Amino acid sequence: MQQSRPNRPIDYLKNSMNKVILIKVKRNRLFRGNLGGFDDHLNLYLEGTSQIFEYQDEEGNIREEHEDLGNIVVRGDNVIFVNLANQDNE
Amino acid sequence: MQQSRPNRPIDYLKNSMNKVILIKVKRNRLFRGNLGGFDDHLNLYLEGTSQIFEYQDEEGNIREEHEDLGNIVVRGDNVIFVNLANQDNE
Amino acid sequence: MQQSRPNRPIDYLKNSMNKVILIKVKRNRLFRGNLGGFDDHLNLYLEGTSQIFEYQDEEGNIREEHEDLGNIVVRGDNVIFVNLANQDNE
Amino acid sequence: MQQSRPNRPIDYLKNSMNKVILIKVKRNRLFRGNLGGFDDHLNLYLEGTSQIFEYQDEEGNIREEHEDLGNIVVRGDNVIFVNLANQDNE
Amino acid sequence: MQQSRPNRPIDYLKNSMNKVILIKVKRNRLFRGNLGGFDDHLNLYLEGTSQIFEYQDEEGNIREEHEDLGNIVVRGDNVIFVNLANQDNE
Amino acid sequence: MQQSRPNRPIDYLKNSMNKVILIKVKRNRLFRGNLGGFDDHLNLYLEGTSQIFEYQDEEGNIREEHEDLGNIVVRGDNVIFVNLANQDNE
Amino acid sequence: MQQSRPNRPIDYLKNSMNKVILIKVKRNRLFRGNLGGFDDHLNLYLEGTSQIFEYQDEEGNIREEHEDLGNIVVRGDNVIFVNLANQDNE
Repeated sequence: MQQSRPNRPIDYLKNSMNKVILIKVKRNRLFRGNLGGFDDHLNLYLEGTSQIFEYQDEEGNIREEHEDLGNIVVRGDNVIFVNLANQDNE
Repeated sequence: MQQSRPNRPIDYLKNSMNKVILIKVKRNRLFRGNLGGFDDHLNLYLEGTSQIFEYQDEEGNIREEHEDLGNIVVRGDNVIFVNLANQDNE
Repeated sequence: MQQSRPNRPIDYLKNSMNKVILIKVKRNRLFRGNLGGFDDHLNLYLEGTSQIFEYQDEEGNIREEHEDLGNIVVRGDNVIFVNLANQDNE
Repeated sequence: MQQSRPNRPIDYLKNSMNKVILIKVKRNRLFRGNLGGFDDHLNLYLEGTSQIFEYQDEEGNIREEHEDLGNIVVRGDNVIFVNLANQDNE
Repeated sequence: MQQSRPNRPIDYLKNSMNKVILIKVKRNRLFRGNLGGFDDHLNLYLEGTSQIFEYQDEEGNIREEHEDLGNIVVRGDNVIFVNLANQDNE
Repeated sequence: MQQSRPNRPIDYLKNSMNKVILIKVKRNRLFRGNLGGFDDHLNLYLEGTSQIFEYQDEEGNIREEHEDLGNIVVRGDNVIFVNLANQDNE
Repeated sequence: MQQSRPNRPIDYLKNSMNKVILIKVKRNRLFRGNLGGFDDHLNLYLEGTSQIFEYQDEEGNIREEHEDLGNIVVRGDNVIFVNLANQDNE
């Protein structure tokens, strides 16, 4: 599926540059934005970001709230995982 | 949209120097202030800062309280993300 | 059972490259995906990942919810343990 | 407002040396004291310190308790932010 | 009781290589497995591991649940302590 | 009040060597002991230490319990602040 | 009381080698064991260890449970303090 495979997980973010990614951070937050930059600590620069706050309503369903944030810099130590852009669908 | 693109997320803070930014920190706090300085750890110097404390009232609505703080130095490890100044609207 | 035994625990991930592994992370989450890359911090690149969220229902039973995530990069400091691919069954 | 602007946030503490500052630390504590020294980790030496403990009473109001501590050394990793001395009012 | 005594606690894990050990990790988990490798961060490689999850039932008794995990790599920063193999009984 | 002023907060501990100090640590604990040694991480060696455990009784009052510990080594990362010996009253 | 006084708190553990010490760790646990080794991170090797788990019963009294663990390696970052062996009573 991928011919050349780099070894460092961080390197896989390169293919998502200037594409929309999802970032799951601690404290039940999600960011969706255009990846504009990153570094080895997983500090991220995102453009056109919307923050998604997940919570459980009283019936136990997962609910979301959206908030437009524009351009943000996320401090890497808050990141749980980055959901890379799907090369086919993007 | 941006011609030259630096690679480090931290570098994007330069364009917000002397402009109003929002800083989301752990423990549900927000700071709004004029960015006067920053370093690689995301330590921040903010002028004319107002702290916004978010909490849920008994009906589950997110509420805010403001407090004027003047000039502050935020220790970087508390930062979740920095909401950069919008170059158009600022 | 194993003739040559490397000393570093991280090295055992090599045998699971391009195989399905389970990753247990903090905050009661599990990822199941194809190991595409890793580094010394246990940062991981996973392909075809599904996230499994464990929770207790009101009768105290452990329940799971699945979510397809595609390709993700997990920040290593969230990892509790990696369940390596079984060489026999895989 | 400021002619020469140093780049490091920590450097702004110099102007508050021997002046009263407020330090917000984790676990809802505030210290008010005379800044006698600091380092790059935001370790702080404070003279004539009073500790302010904030809590919510049963009606949800923020209440404070004061305690005189004299001279203290605060370990920097507890600091959320330092509220610098106001040069005009001090 | 021991003639030559190395100074580093980590070195004592050598005597438990290829023996069954117990690992107590944060968040009330126990692993029992065959020690296949370790490093200075207390990253551990365990073979034939069973995870033991401790919880309190409604009468306050400590209860356990077991789960077979096979071969795992535990990230060292989750470890509280390692219970070494008893040289006599093993 | 002080003629020569060193810059590092840690250096102020020197004046409290062999004097009684108070150490506030995380998880609502206080230690009172004779400072016998310290290092840059705020690791501390205390002689004749008594530990003071603070808790809230059911009426909301702060209560203390004391325990004699003798000589202890405190790991620095638990320290919130050190209350230095008062040179006049000691 | 002590003629030569080393400066590093860690060095005071040397006098407790091969003696019984108490180790207070995070998450309300105590270990009592014979100190067999230590390093600068406060990683500890303990022989003949018994773990003491402290909890509050429903009347608010502190209760203990003991468990024999044999020889263990404690990861230093869990340690709050080490209660050194009393040279007179041991």
